[in-house]
Amino acid sequence: MAPTPIQENLVSSNKAYAASFTQGHLALPPAKKYAVVTCMDARIDPASAYGISLGDAHVIRNAGGNARDALRSLVISEQLLGTQEIILVKHTGCGMLTFKNEDAAGLVRKNLGEAAVAELAAFKGDFQAFPELEAAVKDDVEFLKGSKLIPDSVTISGWVYEVETGKVKSVV
Amino acid sequence: MAPTPIQENLVSSNKAYAASFTQGHLALPPAKKYAVVTCMDARIDPASAYGISLGDAHVIRNAGGNARDALRSLVISEQLLGTQEIILVKHTGCGMLTFKNEDAAGLVRKNLGEAAVAELAAFKGDFQAFPELEAAVKDDVEFLKGSKLIPDSVTISGWVYEVETGKVKSVV
Repeated sequence: MAPTPIQENLVSSNKAYAASFTQGHLALPPAKKYAVVTCMDARIDPASAYGISLGDAHVIRNAGGNARDALRSLVISEQLLGTQEIILVKHTGCGMLTFKNEDAAGLVRKNLGEAAVAELAAFKGDFQAFPELEAAVKDDVEFLKGSKLIPDSVTISGWVYEVETGKVKSVV
Repeated sequence: MAPTPIQENLVSSNKAYAASFTQGHLALPPAKKYAVVTCMDARIDPASAYGISLGDAHVIRNAGGNARDALRSLVISEQLLGTQEIILVKHTGCGMLTFKNEDAAGLVRKNLGEAAVAELAAFKGDFQAFPELEAAVKDDVEFLKGSKLIPDSVTISGWVYEVETGKVKSVV
């Protein structure tokens, strides 16, 4: 199959990146021993916006910057790769503020049919939408602090990134 | 509580980023209508290595660049935000190649106790480790192609990123 424009962009952009790549010596464990959890949103570039140099931190991204969804990755990060701090960042204008579980399930039913709806069981049909941004940050931080899978020695903080201004602010 | 060095770095780096930020007008849906699934590994900067400009694509990251873990995010990306292509990239030297589920569960038991082991049920105790890189890429692409939650109209391709060279190569 002929490559798509997106695949062509990946190949050509990567060729330029690799041509000047000098970081092949970096070790597997994050040098600064921390993990960032943030949203998949296209308007966020964590490396630039949050000051993460190559090799320094795990970056976990999903719809909403969701802590429950990130749990498997965080346990691996902490237990196997030695991270000791978690920075959780949600953001203004998040898609997760714009719908409810029923809306998303309804779209799946309408567009993809009942067999697709059945597969939502893989994540218990919970799209993890949230109605209020700062409350969602606090709730996720509480979840992580309450989880026995994250030891009390791990520092956890919660933040909001403003897609309109590029600014991060501390929440909890 | 006094900020940690990592939190101080976030705040100071972000201040510089926001001072020259000019992208506050970008829309919520990814402009190029695609989603990237890749690993949380600290040695990967998807924006630079994969040629993703701000606003162009959803970026989903977790331990291993795992498709099953990314499913909730991908359904939201496709059904609510209009993405039509998925680029899945795993990488050489991945931590997921270095252990088995039993090893990780054993570490959790030893370090965090039985109550923590019980919480592994949140992800069915499956850390999604894999023994062979290219096979794991193919398996994940097959999983997505087979899922009724991802319509056949979505183009899906699988890749490997070499952390030693910065190069991406096509797998499937």
